[in-house]
Amino acid sequence: MNPGFQEPIITLTSDFGVSDGYVASMRGVLLKLCPRARLVDISHDVPRHEILPTALIMEATIPYFPAGTVHLVVVDPGVGSTRRALALAAAGQYFVGPDNGVFTPFLQEDVSAGAVAIEEKRFRLRPFSSTFHGRDLFAPAAAHIARGSDYRSLGPAVDDPVKFQWPGTSLNGDELAGVVLHVDHFGSCITSIKAEDLPGWEAYYVRCCGVDFGPLKRHYAEVVSGAPLALINSMGRLELAIAQGNAAVALGIKAGDDVRVAATKWAD
Amino acid sequence: MNPGFQEPIITLTSDFGVSDGYVASMRGVLLKLCPRARLVDISHDVPRHEILPTALIMEATIPYFPAGTVHLVVVDPGVGSTRRALALAAAGQYFVGPDNGVFTPFLQEDVSAGAVAIEEKRFRLRPFSSTFHGRDLFAPAAAHIARGSDYRSLGPAVDDPVKFQWPGTSLNGDELAGVVLHVDHFGSCITSIKAEDLPGWEAYYVRCCGVDFGPLKRHYAEVVSGAPLALINSMGRLELAIAQGNAAVALGIKAGDDVRVAATKWAD
Amino acid sequence: MNPGFQEPIITLTSDFGVSDGYVASMRGVLLKLCPRARLVDISHDVPRHEILPTALIMEATIPYFPAGTVHLVVVDPGVGSTRRALALAAAGQYFVGPDNGVFTPFLQEDVSAGAVAIEEKRFRLRPFSSTFHGRDLFAPAAAHIARGSDYRSLGPAVDDPVKFQWPGTSLNGDELAGVVLHVDHFGSCITSIKAEDLPGWEAYYVRCCGVDFGPLKRHYAEVVSGAPLALINSMGRLELAIAQGNAAVALGIKAGDDVRVAATKWAD
Repeated sequence: MNPGFQEPIITLTSDFGVSDGYVASMRGVLLKLCPRARLVDISHDVPRHEILPTALIMEATIPYFPAGTVHLVVVDPGVGSTRRALALAAAGQYFVGPDNGVFTPFLQEDVSAGAVAIEEKRFRLRPFSSTFHGRDLFAPAAAHIARGSDYRSLGPAVDDPVKFQWPGTSLNGDELAGVVLHVDHFGSCITSIKAEDLPGWEAYYVRCCGVDFGPLKRHYAEVVSGAPLALINSMGRLELAIAQGNAAVALGIKAGDDVRVAATKWAD
Repeated sequence: MNPGFQEPIITLTSDFGVSDGYVASMRGVLLKLCPRARLVDISHDVPRHEILPTALIMEATIPYFPAGTVHLVVVDPGVGSTRRALALAAAGQYFVGPDNGVFTPFLQEDVSAGAVAIEEKRFRLRPFSSTFHGRDLFAPAAAHIARGSDYRSLGPAVDDPVKFQWPGTSLNGDELAGVVLHVDHFGSCITSIKAEDLPGWEAYYVRCCGVDFGPLKRHYAEVVSGAPLALINSMGRLELAIAQGNAAVALGIKAGDDVRVAATKWAD
Repeated sequence: MNPGFQEPIITLTSDFGVSDGYVASMRGVLLKLCPRARLVDISHDVPRHEILPTALIMEATIPYFPAGTVHLVVVDPGVGSTRRALALAAAGQYFVGPDNGVFTPFLQEDVSAGAVAIEEKRFRLRPFSSTFHGRDLFAPAAAHIARGSDYRSLGPAVDDPVKFQWPGTSLNGDELAGVVLHVDHFGSCITSIKAEDLPGWEAYYVRCCGVDFGPLKRHYAEVVSGAPLALINSMGRLELAIAQGNAAVALGIKAGDDVRVAATKWAD
């Protein structure tokens, strides 16, 4: 890092929306406890209480941040219950949030990942709300790490952080099957099939919800406006789209729908 | 403050939305006039032209910011009319915005609050728009304060800033009555009843729009998904919610609706 | 610039929305390559793939930013096609984005504007996505300029950057005609008619979609709530609005509709 210029980055991810001041309260806490922090939003509109799309967005985004970035993630359907609070070091960065699987992409990729349960109460805000741990527990913990303290001082080591099982892909002869994981802002449908899952076929014919997406393309401009297409997107995942259109709305595709890839054209 | 590290914080609150560049123009003005400023959004999606929910969001958020923060608030149905422009010191922080009641929470809490009418024209941008004081009058005034100047140099003292009367609560024997003030992003309904308004009863049974919210809970995870509940939320106010659901949509609750709390179960 | 305090500003404009992490990936790239950068959002909700409203928003916003600001604009329907990538110096600021006309306002205003095609591949991220140039090509180029490098090192000079023709105004005797360019967050309708287009008449009577907006006003508070009005807005353009209402929804006005201004009252 540039000596004489040390401003830690803290990213924020939540399902709070940005209309009510909940995110702003967390920003205030972060800046009060770590005045040098730079705050960067990942998203505050992830699907409410949904762990998988949050993890998907983080998987696609976090690798572009500098080493040492602290990622505060508050998608937390179990706030107030007995779910643990987690601080985690993985892939050269830090993560703070509920132990509900939201950090699955980073737990799987980094065998050296260390995790602790945030149990030290001295870092909490007082008064402490039982409904807003993002503000009163997670933000102070993130600020603590961003100030340069060891994340392991936040509580005891945890060797079984919650992971979810990604919906997989299955190969049956000349057909590869997967599912739609997330519909994005454009109505494009991001699937469980990664580039590296594709067998060494000469072409890949994609089908979903009875619609033929034709052979795999490289970019959206390869088809005429309004035409459906499939490509490997910027996350390295198979994506179903309509050029300059909204595939989810136009074709009725939603998260969980089956998608299939074949080596040869689909029969009508 | 950390010597050698002085970056003033300016927060922005408006009903402008973020799609058209109006907020960005204010950000540009702030950074041009106060290059060291850190800009933090509170919300740009408060209900349009509505003072009370804006004040509610600020009441819940501002206490989490560091001393000396400058809060720029532009919810301003009277732009161009004779409403005054206000700069205010209260609770160790600074406020700039229209004199329409939006600062009510801070006027009531801090008896030492000082306010001035921003009348000095030398701080305004030129050309000066009669429809966008946020950019041409309030942002320059906020930058002026953030640069370390005395807010009292902006104009003459005002001893009667506009305050609105919060919808109150009333206690009648074993029943406490209040109203819904705001429906948040989750569809949860924030009421005029504060924790300190609750009498010393053994339990609190909550009812609103003909729906029984049962005895007061401590957190959302205490009821099953889809069940209505009432709790004291992270703002210290009685809130009506549906666990992992949208109470306002599901139950037809809206701002202004009556809410009642009783010491004993409601008869059906 | 304040010596000893040099934090370049990079603004971001896109049609990506902020829910999926696409903007966040660009923020990560910018901060990794230019750790001192201050990131400021112009808008991420410009109408999808639409060049004209994006240019309009930038025209209204960019002049308020300090000299030397770098503006990263990614509204890019042609990503992956042969459209060029552009870096541009104009009006004392820098611009990076697709060569699709989005920089039209700045190309017209500054005859000394210099532009280059970003062709140097050494600045690109690896791996390089053919669908997300905002992250892999434009953000690195913007960071390069923000770090103080010469924008001309990004590639060869371009002397024919794409410009679109603004929908104009035409004066026929006592009638001035124009079109609606953009409907903003409030439902107000921003037109192609600029303040300087108005002839030296004593009054200006405005009509659009069969609705009479009366003589030109100076601010919204000049008419009663719910009444239609026309004024020269904070962008210096004729705007049609409803006081505290939504003109586009209430009156069915949309981008492209004709608007007419006359020196005398419209006959019914």
